[in-house]
Amino acid sequence: MAGRVATPTLGVCYYPEHWSEETWAQDAAQMVATGLTWVRIGEFAWSRLEPREGVFDFDWMDRAIETLGSAGLRVVLGTPTATPPRWVVDKYPDMLAVDGDGRVRGFGSRRHYCFSHAGYRAESARITTELARRYGRKPHVAAWQTDNEYGCHDTVVSYSNAARDAFRDWLAQRYQSPQALNRAWGNVFWSMEYDSFDQVELPNLTVTEPNPAHVMAFRRFSSDQVVAFNRVQTQILRAHTDAPLIHNYMGRELAFDHFAVGADLDVASWDSYPIGFLSDRIEASEAHKARYLQQGDPDMQAFHHDLYRAVGNGRWWIMEQQPGPVNWAPYNPAPLPGMARLWAWEAFAHGAEAVCYFRWRQAPIAQEQNHAGLLRPDSQPAPALGEAAQVAQEIAAVGPLETTQAPVALVFDYPSAWAWETQPQGADFDYFRLMLDMYRALRKLGLSVDIVPSDCDDLSGYGLVLAPGLMTLGQTLSDAMQRCSAACLIGPRANTLTEEFAIPNPMPPQVPGLDVTISLMESLPPSHMRPLREGGAVRHWMERLEGAAEVTLATEAGDAVVMSSGNLYYLGAWLDDAGLGALISKLCVAQGIETHVMPEGLRLRDAGGTRFVINYGADPVTWDGRSVPGCGVAWFAR
Amino acid sequence: MAGRVATPTLGVCYYPEHWSEETWAQDAAQMVATGLTWVRIGEFAWSRLEPREGVFDFDWMDRAIETLGSAGLRVVLGTPTATPPRWVVDKYPDMLAVDGDGRVRGFGSRRHYCFSHAGYRAESARITTELARRYGRKPHVAAWQTDNEYGCHDTVVSYSNAARDAFRDWLAQRYQSPQALNRAWGNVFWSMEYDSFDQVELPNLTVTEPNPAHVMAFRRFSSDQVVAFNRVQTQILRAHTDAPLIHNYMGRELAFDHFAVGADLDVASWDSYPIGFLSDRIEASEAHKARYLQQGDPDMQAFHHDLYRAVGNGRWWIMEQQPGPVNWAPYNPAPLPGMARLWAWEAFAHGAEAVCYFRWRQAPIAQEQNHAGLLRPDSQPAPALGEAAQVAQEIAAVGPLETTQAPVALVFDYPSAWAWETQPQGADFDYFRLMLDMYRALRKLGLSVDIVPSDCDDLSGYGLVLAPGLMTLGQTLSDAMQRCSAACLIGPRANTLTEEFAIPNPMPPQVPGLDVTISLMESLPPSHMRPLREGGAVRHWMERLEGAAEVTLATEAGDAVVMSSGNLYYLGAWLDDAGLGALISKLCVAQGIETHVMPEGLRLRDAGGTRFVINYGADPVTWDGRSVPGCGVAWFAR
Amino acid sequence: MAGRVATPTLGVCYYPEHWSEETWAQDAAQMVATGLTWVRIGEFAWSRLEPREGVFDFDWMDRAIETLGSAGLRVVLGTPTATPPRWVVDKYPDMLAVDGDGRVRGFGSRRHYCFSHAGYRAESARITTELARRYGRKPHVAAWQTDNEYGCHDTVVSYSNAARDAFRDWLAQRYQSPQALNRAWGNVFWSMEYDSFDQVELPNLTVTEPNPAHVMAFRRFSSDQVVAFNRVQTQILRAHTDAPLIHNYMGRELAFDHFAVGADLDVASWDSYPIGFLSDRIEASEAHKARYLQQGDPDMQAFHHDLYRAVGNGRWWIMEQQPGPVNWAPYNPAPLPGMARLWAWEAFAHGAEAVCYFRWRQAPIAQEQNHAGLLRPDSQPAPALGEAAQVAQEIAAVGPLETTQAPVALVFDYPSAWAWETQPQGADFDYFRLMLDMYRALRKLGLSVDIVPSDCDDLSGYGLVLAPGLMTLGQTLSDAMQRCSAACLIGPRANTLTEEFAIPNPMPPQVPGLDVTISLMESLPPSHMRPLREGGAVRHWMERLEGAAEVTLATEAGDAVVMSSGNLYYLGAWLDDAGLGALISKLCVAQGIETHVMPEGLRLRDAGGTRFVINYGADPVTWDGRSVPGCGVAWFAR
Ligand SMILES: [Zn+2]
Ligand SMILES: [Zn+2]
Ligand SMILES: [Zn+2]
Repeated sequence: MAGRVATPTLGVCYYPEHWSEETWAQDAAQMVATGLTWVRIGEFAWSRLEPREGVFDFDWMDRAIETLGSAGLRVVLGTPTATPPRWVVDKYPDMLAVDGDGRVRGFGSRRHYCFSHAGYRAESARITTELARRYGRKPHVAAWQTDNEYGCHDTVVSYSNAARDAFRDWLAQRYQSPQALNRAWGNVFWSMEYDSFDQVELPNLTVTEPNPAHVMAFRRFSSDQVVAFNRVQTQILRAHTDAPLIHNYMGRELAFDHFAVGADLDVASWDSYPIGFLSDRIEASEAHKARYLQQGDPDMQAFHHDLYRAVGNGRWWIMEQQPGPVNWAPYNPAPLPGMARLWAWEAFAHGAEAVCYFRWRQAPIAQEQNHAGLLRPDSQPAPALGEAAQVAQEIAAVGPLETTQAPVALVFDYPSAWAWETQPQGADFDYFRLMLDMYRALRKLGLSVDIVPSDCDDLSGYGLVLAPGLMTLGQTLSDAMQRCSAACLIGPRANTLTEEFAIPNPMPPQVPGLDVTISLMESLPPSHMRPLREGGAVRHWMERLEGAAEVTLATEAGDAVVMSSGNLYYLGAWLDDAGLGALISKLCVAQGIETHVMPEGLRLRDAGGTRFVINYGADPVTWDGRSVPGCGVAWFAR
Repeated sequence: MAGRVATPTLGVCYYPEHWSEETWAQDAAQMVATGLTWVRIGEFAWSRLEPREGVFDFDWMDRAIETLGSAGLRVVLGTPTATPPRWVVDKYPDMLAVDGDGRVRGFGSRRHYCFSHAGYRAESARITTELARRYGRKPHVAAWQTDNEYGCHDTVVSYSNAARDAFRDWLAQRYQSPQALNRAWGNVFWSMEYDSFDQVELPNLTVTEPNPAHVMAFRRFSSDQVVAFNRVQTQILRAHTDAPLIHNYMGRELAFDHFAVGADLDVASWDSYPIGFLSDRIEASEAHKARYLQQGDPDMQAFHHDLYRAVGNGRWWIMEQQPGPVNWAPYNPAPLPGMARLWAWEAFAHGAEAVCYFRWRQAPIAQEQNHAGLLRPDSQPAPALGEAAQVAQEIAAVGPLETTQAPVALVFDYPSAWAWETQPQGADFDYFRLMLDMYRALRKLGLSVDIVPSDCDDLSGYGLVLAPGLMTLGQTLSDAMQRCSAACLIGPRANTLTEEFAIPNPMPPQVPGLDVTISLMESLPPSHMRPLREGGAVRHWMERLEGAAEVTLATEAGDAVVMSSGNLYYLGAWLDDAGLGALISKLCVAQGIETHVMPEGLRLRDAGGTRFVINYGADPVTWDGRSVPGCGVAWFAR
Repeated sequence: MAGRVATPTLGVCYYPEHWSEETWAQDAAQMVATGLTWVRIGEFAWSRLEPREGVFDFDWMDRAIETLGSAGLRVVLGTPTATPPRWVVDKYPDMLAVDGDGRVRGFGSRRHYCFSHAGYRAESARITTELARRYGRKPHVAAWQTDNEYGCHDTVVSYSNAARDAFRDWLAQRYQSPQALNRAWGNVFWSMEYDSFDQVELPNLTVTEPNPAHVMAFRRFSSDQVVAFNRVQTQILRAHTDAPLIHNYMGRELAFDHFAVGADLDVASWDSYPIGFLSDRIEASEAHKARYLQQGDPDMQAFHHDLYRAVGNGRWWIMEQQPGPVNWAPYNPAPLPGMARLWAWEAFAHGAEAVCYFRWRQAPIAQEQNHAGLLRPDSQPAPALGEAAQVAQEIAAVGPLETTQAPVALVFDYPSAWAWETQPQGADFDYFRLMLDMYRALRKLGLSVDIVPSDCDDLSGYGLVLAPGLMTLGQTLSDAMQRCSAACLIGPRANTLTEEFAIPNPMPPQVPGLDVTISLMESLPPSHMRPLREGGAVRHWMERLEGAAEVTLATEAGDAVVMSSGNLYYLGAWLDDAGLGALISKLCVAQGIETHVMPEGLRLRDAGGTRFVINYGADPVTWDGRSVPGCGVAWFAR
C-alpha cells in the first residue's frame, strides 16, 4: 500500500434554516476566521426545500450556499432523506418502519422510513435528483453527503410489510426454490419447511428463537437494502456532479455492511462522539469509565478511524466531531480542556482529510438543544471554538501528513457481527467487543494498525494479521494468508460457520495448513476465568482444540489455547488484556515488529515519518523522554 | 400568612358494600368508640349504585349513611368514577386509555378510563349528578371526594384516539395556526413541520426521542384534561351541596398539576403509605432503606403534608393512612409499634384537619386482600386500632393546633417535573428527587417548611426561599423575590427553559439583579463527585457559571457553584447532603434563622407555639434534654 | 409403599430425518455397542410425515423404525404436535398463541399453538390417529411420547381469542351464573361485577393488577387445557397400543398440573439439563453458581427425580439428559469429566427406569446447532459417549435397584405455584424456590425424600412430612396428617387461601388440632434478616402467629416462628439454610430419623439396601470412611 498524503482540514456542520438570514454572513466570516475549510449543510432541510409535494423553495438554499461559499468555505451538501416531511408520510403511511415488537415507528423525530419501501425510495430519488440538478455543478458545493447516519436509532432492520415482501423477493432470487431454502437453512429441524416463499415471515415474535439461518438471511437482506437505498442516490449524484460523495457513518453501528455502502462512495466519514460513546456503547469497568469520563475511551476513536480509512479505501473524514457535552447519553459531562483539539489531531494522525465539528451554534430548540456547538446559543464562543482555532493554526504549521501501511492488519467483517448477535451462544460474546479488545491490546503495545475487510486479497507488507471472530474465512483471505509472511492469528470462533449458518463439515476451523479442530465450544460467565501458564487468563469463551499442530499457548490446566503451524496460529479463546498482550508481544518479537508497552492512557500513531503521542489521561505523562500534557498530543519525526 | 387553627380529627375508609348489612351498626359503634369522626364511603361502589345503565339502587347507600351518621360519624361520600362498571365500558369501548406502547388498558381493575373521552366524561357527570341530587343536602354527608387518586397507576397520560383528537383541539386553541406551533416548537429542526393540526400525532413510538416541546405540550394538555374532568364533578356538586369538596391525591404523583385541580376544591388530601413508598418510590441508599424499613422515610410524609397544605390553600387531610402492611410494594413489612400513631401526629403537627386510616376492616377478597386495616378480616383488632384509639384520646387532651408561617419556603412546580422527565439530560435528574433532597436538608437542620406554588406572589415573612429545578421563573415569583427580604436560593437548572421548551435568549438563568449566566450544563454519573472547598460535593449535575455576581461557593477546583448579589443566590449544581446542609446553614445564619442539627431520624415541626419532635428511628433519642422513644413523638411549648 | 424394583437402562434421542438414510444403520449399531436400549424419535418430524395436508409419507419412518429396531433398540415414538408444519398454520391462522402483551407468537420455531384452539386440537388428534394406527402394534415401538415439553417457552398461558372463548365456557361450567362468579371472586371490590360470562376478558393488560381470583381461575383453566389436549392423544393411543405412554416434562416448568397430566400416562419423564438450569433458572449466590458451574446444582436434579417419581406413580425416566454444552442458557460451559455418568447414576439411585441422552449426534443446522450430542457433528465421539458406555457396563454389573419409601415426604402442589405467582406479596416469594430450599435442607442432612401430591391420602410410614407454601390444605391431606405418626411441618403461608383466592374465615392456617392463627404476614427484603434464638434467621417472609399452641421456635426478639401441638407444627416463616437445618434436625431427632450432616456438594440417596454417595464437587471427598472422587458417585450396601 503506497503512502497516501493529505493536508488536514477542519469544518463544521451548519443549519442556515435554523437561523435568521442576517446572521449567515457573520457566521461564515467567523468560521473562516477560526480556520475552517468545510461547512456541511442541508441534510435535515427537506421541509424547507419542498414544503409541499412538488413545491420547491431553493432560493434560501441558493443564498446560503452563496453566502458561505463566497466567504471562502467549501460546502458539503446533504441529501435530506433522513427526515422526510410530514406530507411524505401522509402520502405513504406504510413507509414507516416497524420494530421487532410490531410497533410502527412514527413520524416526529428522524429516520422514520423503511429502507424497503419502494414509494419512499422513489421520493428519495426525486428529491436527490432535484438537488443534484440544481447544485451538482455549483462551484461552492465541493462534496455531497448521502442521507445521514444510516442505521442510527436501530433503523436498519424493519419488520414492516414492505420489508417482508422485499425479503421474499430477495429469498426467491437467492435460493430459487423453497426446497433449496429449506435445505440451506436446515428447516427440517423443527418441521419449519416452506412450500412457497410467500410463507416466509420475518424472524420476529416467534415462540422461541427463530432459526439462526433465517435471521442471518434477514440480516444480509437488511444490509443489502441500505446499500441499494444509498446506491439510488449515488447513481443520481454521479450523473450531475464530480464532487466526492460521502456518507457519515455512526459510531459502533454494525447493522449494515459499511464496506458495501462505501464501495459506491468516494470518501468514508464517521461521527465521533467520544464521551457519549464511552457512556452508552462501550463495555468497560466502572473504573475505566470513571477515568476517561471527560475524554472518551483511548481506543474507540482510533479504531473507527482505522475502520473508516479502510471503508473509504484510504480517504476518510470525521463528519461530526463532539465539541462539548451532548444531549443523548445517559450522562453528559463536558470534555476536559484540550480534548476537542486532541480528538482532531488523533484523527489527522490516522489519516483524516477533514474533521468537522458538530455543530456551529448550539440550537436552543427541539431534540438537540442541549448538544453543545462551537458557539453557545447566544453566539458567544463555547470552549471548543478556541481549540478548533488552535488546531487550524497547527495544521498550517505541520503541513501534509502521510499514511503508510501499518505493521499489523486486523480483519473486520460486518456479517460476523450479525452472526454473533444472532447466536451469541454466551451472553458476553459480541463481535465489536472482541474486536475492540484485540485492537486495544495492539495499541497498548504502541502499534499502528490497519483494518482490512474480510475479502482482502493482499496481506503483503504486514508482519501480523489478526482475524478474531470471523464467521466464515473466505477463499480470498485464506489464500492471502497462505501467501503472506505475516504471522496470522485466526480465532477465536473463526470459520466456525458456513455462509448459511451451519457448522461446516469437516469441522472448524479448517485453515489450510493448520491441523486444528474445534471439538467443543464453551461460553463462560464473568465469574469464571481460566489462568494461562504464562500469565493472563481465558474469559468469556473457550474452545477445545485438537489436532497435530503445535500447542503454542495453554492454560495452567494444560488445555491448548493457541495452536500453530508455520505462520498460521489458531486462537481458541477470548483472552483477557494480560493474556492478549503477552501473546501479541510474543508474535511481534518473532516477526521483528517493534512494540512499546504504553503507559495507561497513552497511545502512539505513526503517520509516515511523524510519530504522534496521544495522552487520553488527565495528567501529564513522560514517555521516551518527552512529556505529554494531560489531554495533550505531541508529534515528532520518528 | 395568618395562623390557621384546627382541631385534629380521625377517620377511616369503609366499604359497606363489602360486608353484610348486619355488621354495619356494630362497625359504626366500634368506629365511634375508637374515637373516629369521619368515615369515607362509596368511591368504588358504582356497580352497586347503578348495576345496569339507568337502573339505580340507592337504598343500601341510604341505609349505610343513616347507620353511620346516626352512630355519630360524619360521612365523606366519594363519586365512584374511578371504577366504571363493565356496562359503561361495553357502551364506550373506546373510553379505555392506551399506554405508550399502544396497548389498550382494559377493564378488570380500576382507573380504566381516558380523561379525554367525552362519552365517559358525560357518564361521570351523570352519576355525579345522581349522587349530588340524592345526598347533597343530607346532613350526615359532611364532605365529598371526587373520584379516587387521579393519576395512580400512571393514568394521566393516555395515547388513545380520544386523547389525540382532544390534543389537536387543545393545540389549535393554544397556537391558532400550525405555523405558530411550528415556530413555538422549533419544528424546522428535523423537518418536523406541520401544515395542519390534524397531522400532529401523540409523541409516542417515534423512531428516536420526539421533540421535547411536543412532549411538554402533551404533558400540559394531559394535566389540563384531569383538571377539566374534575371540574365537571365539582360544578355539579357545588350546585347541590355546601359540604367541602376534596380529592385524595396519591404520594409522589406528579403527572398533573395538583394546584390547578386544588383550585376547584376546598380541601386537599393525600394518601400516605410510608412503608410502601419507601420501598417503591424513593431513591435512597440500601442502608437508609434498611434503617427505615418499618417506619418509612423520615421526610417523605412531611414533604407531602407541606405540599398539600399548599395545594389546599391551608386546608388538608390524610384521606388514607397506612395502618399495617400493604399489598402493593415489592416488599411489605409491618410498621413498628408506634408508627400508626406517629404518622397521625406528624400530620397534625403539619396542620392536618383529619387523618383517615385506610381501611376499617381488611378485605378477604380481590386485589387488596393483603392490605391491612384497623381490623383483621375476622374483625379482630389489628395492631393499628389501639394506636388510633390512643391518638384519639391524645387529640382530645391537646386540643386545637395552629399552623403558622414557616421560616423557609420551597417552590414546587408540576410543569418542572414534566420538563425534566421529558428531557432529564442526565439519568439522575428527577425533579421530585431534587426537591426531596432539598427538603431533607432543611429538615435535618430542624426547620419547618412551607411549600409554595411557582406563581406565588408574596414571599414576605420568609427568611429563606428555595427554587430548585424551576423550569421557568415567572414574572410573579420573580417580582416577589425582588420584593422580599428572604435569601432566595434559585437553581440548579432554574429558569433554563421557556414555557415552550426552548433555551431562552439571553441565556439562563436571567434572574433580575443577579449577573449570572449558565455557559454550559453537565450531567454526572454516580461515580463522579466534585468536592467543594468547604466540605460536601457536587453530584448528578453541574453548571458552568459566568458573570459579575460574587462567587459564594466553589469546588476545590475553583469552579463557581453558588453566585450571589444581595438576597439572590444562584446554585449551579446538585449538592450532596453535606454540601447542601452547609450551604443552607450558612444562609440561615446570615438570615438569623435558628437551625438545629438533628440527630439521625429525628425531625422537628413547629405548630404555632407547640414544637413536635418526631423520631423515625427505632431507638430512643435524647434531644434538647428530652428523650423521645423510638417510633415516638413528643410535643411541648417552645 | 411397597418397594418397586427396576433395572436401569440407557437411551438416546435421535432424528433420522436429519441424516442421510445411509448412516442410520451405523448409528443404530453404534448405539447398541454403547449399551443403549432406547431410541426416541419422531417428535418434530410432522413436516416429513405429512408434507401437505392429507399427504403422508410414512415410508422413511417405517424404514427408520425397522433399522433401529432390528439393530436391537426399542423405539419411543413421539407424536409430532409440538411442531405443526407451516400448512397447518396457514389453515388455522388463529391457532397461534398470544402473549400477555397481545402479540401473536408466530411460526418459525416450535410450540406455536394455543392449547385452546379447537381446530388445532382436531389436527393433533388426526396426526396422532394416523401414527397410532400405523405404529401402535409395531413390535419395535415400545413406548410413546405425547408432544414435547408442554409449557416450554412459556406456552401454557395464551391470551388468544380461542383461549378467551374457551375460558368463558370453562367459567360458565364452573360457576353456572355470573352472579356466582362475582361472589366467588369478590368482584364487588372495585365494581368489577359481570352480568354475563361474555363480559369476562382474559386477565392481561389491565390498568393495575387484575383480581387475583380472576388470574387464579385463568391459571386453573390454562392447566386444564393442557390436560385436555394431552388426553385427546392418550385416548387415541390407548385404542391402538399397549405400550406405555410418556410425556417429557421440562425442568422447573410449573404452569400446568403435572400430576393431572400424569394421571393419563403410564410413565413420567423429564428433561434434565443440569448446567443450563443452574445458569438460567435457579436462585443462588454467585459463589454457589461458580462452584457448580460445570456440574449443575447438587439438589435440582434430585428434586425433579423425586417429583417425577411421584407424577409417574413410581415409574419415571429422564427422556433428555444433557451430555455436553447446551445452546440456550446465558452461558454454556462444558460438564466436567464424570458428570454425564454422575447424572445418570443419580437418576437411577432415585428410581429412574431409563436415562436417555439428548441427542445422538450434534446437529450442524438450525436453532440447536451448538447443543452437544453423544457424537460431534462430524460423527466423532463427544466426551459423553464414553461415559454413557461406562454407565451401561456398570448397570449390567449392578443389576436391578429397589425404590423404597423415604423417611420424609414433601408435599408438592402446582396450584400453589400459580397462587404465589399471582400474588407473591413479596418479590422473593416463589413457590419453587421455597420448595427447593426445603428440599436442599433435607438433603444436606443426608435424607432421602419422597414428593407427594397435595391430595395424598396416606402418610403412613413417614417420620416427617413437610407442606411449605401450600395454598389450600385440603381435607384429604389434612386427614392423612391427623392419622399419621409423622411430624408434620406445615407452612409458611400454608392454607392461607381458599380455592377461590380469598382469605378464609376463621383465619388461617386452621389446622385441626393446632391452635395457631396468622394475625399478620410480612414480606422482607434481602437486606432484612431476623435472627433466631437457636441460630439461623428468618428471611423473605414472616407471619405473626397467635394461639394456644406451644412456641417451638422463636426469633431473638421473642416472636414465634414455629408453634406446635402433638405431631403438628406450623412454621410461620421462610428460614435461611442454618435455621432450616437446625429445625429439621430437631424434628428428625424427635422422630428417630437418622440424619447425616453432609459435606459441601455431597449427597446421599438410598435405593433399597443400596446407598449412593454422589459428589457434585470437583474435588474428592471422604465420607464415612470412603473417598468419593470429584464428580463421582459411589454405592454400597447400607
Ligand atoms: Zn449526528
Ligand atoms: Zn388508595
Ligand atoms: Zn428438549
